Amino acid sequence: MKVGGNPYRTIWVAADGWSVEIIDQTKLPHRFETLALRTLGEAAHAIKSMQVRGAPLIGATAAYGVALAMRADASDAALDKAYATLLATRPTAINLKWALDDMRAHLRPRPAAERAAAAYARAGVICDEDVAMNAAIGRNGLALIEAARKKKGGGVVNILTHCNAGWLATVDWGTATAPLYMAHDAGIPIHVWVDETRPRNQGASLTAWELAGHGVPHKVIVDNAGGHLMQHGLVDLCIVGTDRTTRTGDVCNKIGTYLKALAAHDNKVPFYVALPSPTIDWTMTDGLAIPIEERDEREVTEIQGRAPSGEIVSVRLTPEASRASNYGFDVTPARLVTALVTERGVCPASEEGLRGLFAERAA
Amino acid sequence: MKVGGNPYRTIWVAADGWSVEIIDQTKLPHRFETLALRTLGEAAHAIKSMQVRGAPLIGATAAYGVALAMRADASDAALDKAYATLLATRPTAINLKWALDDMRAHLRPRPAAERAAAAYARAGVICDEDVAMNAAIGRNGLALIEAARKKKGGGVVNILTHCNAGWLATVDWGTATAPLYMAHDAGIPIHVWVDETRPRNQGASLTAWELAGHGVPHKVIVDNAGGHLMQHGLVDLCIVGTDRTTRTGDVCNKIGTYLKALAAHDNKVPFYVALPSPTIDWTMTDGLAIPIEERDEREVTEIQGRAPSGEIVSVRLTPEASRASNYGFDVTPARLVTALVTERGVCPASEEGLRGLFAERAA
Repeated sequence: MKVGGNPYRTIWVAADGWSVEIIDQTKLPHRFETLALRTLGEAAHAIKSMQVRGAPLIGATAAYGVALAMRADASDAALDKAYATLLATRPTAINLKWALDDMRAHLRPRPAAERAAAAYARAGVICDEDVAMNAAIGRNGLALIEAARKKKGGGVVNILTHCNAGWLATVDWGTATAPLYMAHDAGIPIHVWVDETRPRNQGASLTAWELAGHGVPHKVIVDNAGGHLMQHGLVDLCIVGTDRTTRTGDVCNKIGTYLKALAAHDNKVPFYVALPSPTIDWTMTDGLAIPIEERDEREVTEIQGRAPSGEIVSVRLTPEASRASNYGFDVTPARLVTALVTERGVCPASEEGLRGLFAERAA
Repeated sequence: MKVGGNPYRTIWVAADGWSVEIIDQTKLPHRFETLALRTLGEAAHAIKSMQVRGAPLIGATAAYGVALAMRADASDAALDKAYATLLATRPTAINLKWALDDMRAHLRPRPAAERAAAAYARAGVICDEDVAMNAAIGRNGLALIEAARKKKGGGVVNILTHCNAGWLATVDWGTATAPLYMAHDAGIPIHVWVDETRPRNQGASLTAWELAGHGVPHKVIVDNAGGHLMQHGLVDLCIVGTDRTTRTGDVCNKIGTYLKALAAHDNKVPFYVALPSPTIDWTMTDGLAIPIEERDEREVTEIQGRAPSGEIVSVRLTPEASRASNYGFDVTPARLVTALVTERGVCPASEEGLRGLFAERAA
């Protein structure tokens, strides 16, 4: 999407034809800086330090990390080392393992002399496939935004989103944001309520920055505000992403998603979940059985921002004597989800719904 | 309640017998500092700059502000000036006007020579009445905590609260916190989940500090977390305060309260509202008709905390190009409220319920 009027992806091969450029997301929203990755170590560091984040982008960066490794040394040993090094950066990221398995399976059968070029080509395909999947989600979600506008008799469509399921988390378009960008680019007037999404504030720092860069009208709100907005008719639809969805349509997503789904249900506001099919967990039928990560309490007790000096600092919010608890995700039961928006179309949040679109995987 | 092992109120007459001491709440939770108010101007500044906040404490401070004014000049003109000066500090605070009206009506008929002493005495009565009302709410709420403990067969009672309806907002005990302190002091094991309560973070900065000072076990959580905790049986009951409740039991309270009430309802967790009867608005029957204050967007785009240097600073959270929206309150419909906890007893959140306790006012 656009930054300062220019189109960007989150990862691309530089003009030199081999180094890999990324946006340093740890500097957002305060500074827009790109970085060139030139070694396996730099790629691993970019993932580990969260200069890149979001499951699809982590996968894409790992793929290019393998390509950088192959350029330096295309031996079997180097391929194994690249695999292990990159896999260790974020052990719970499913797309990371998926991308690395794909790269290794693709490269292993080839002679070493061909591996570097094949790795770059394959990483490019992984990126393009991600872009195509998100664009398809965007087109399918666009129809829902058009329908919401028609239903209200025209005017601006107010859309609430949570966290960052945006293009910064993918290679381009994003998942929950893809319909927003498609609608905006198609001239449909939209306005986005951006939940700040404590504790890590990905909404306030990343989603708001994305939307501002692309020129989409929006306002940041605290996570407490969505219920009030829905009670007063100020939200026409909600759309969020997901980290993992059960075969029965229960949606695991950033902590707080469930509260917004409850408010949407209570106020008859459609609640959509944008869902690239690789995030469906066909083995699970009960969302509440998904183990929820407990993260460092300092994400709650401290927050990062830009000081008046311009410096980016962490400040302490809570009393020294108080501890905090920090669950990363929650689960929205399928009964609260109006529909799932996938790359193959829109379906009810249910086993029947998902089966209808993905019969071959549901078996 | 206790700070560092010593009992405190939020406002008291100093050892010199006339200056008025307060806790400077703008320094919390990072520094505990008390301040002496010696003039009308200092009392007005304390309210305006939010060194004191919370409706009951604002009223008590205004009452003592009148006493300080009378000590310097007990003329009719000085009384009128004190009234006008203090009323202008926080024009929408209902307790402020109530306390000032009470003080003026009490002092006006008296000869000037008696006014200073009468003003101190009356301010003391206003404080004692607030303490007695909160203590009664505490005793009534304590029974609900005891019942919750019995229902779960013993063990620690997990209680979620939102914002600061604590002793710092009143003269002592607080409203929503009064049952917590009573339970803790009675040896009932409780653990409090403290919503941080963005944007102003009164939970993380004030409620957590209060509970820590008094030794009540607690953890701070982001506002997004309560739903997850309730889904997993980690909350036995919720108790919050209110700024204004309709005669039909709709509860206007800090933004985000409604979302927690929805989650409580969805998970069959009792949701109680602690309610001093002066906050009942007998003229209103529809909570959603209550006008909701929109506050400065900088409360959303910036946050205050303690920098590594020890300095208390504001940092910017959002992109320069993004605007924010900041509604201060929301309304929880009576249907989501398990019961109201008043100084006269516990009742259903309904017109019949409130009438049963306050027949003379409901007429």
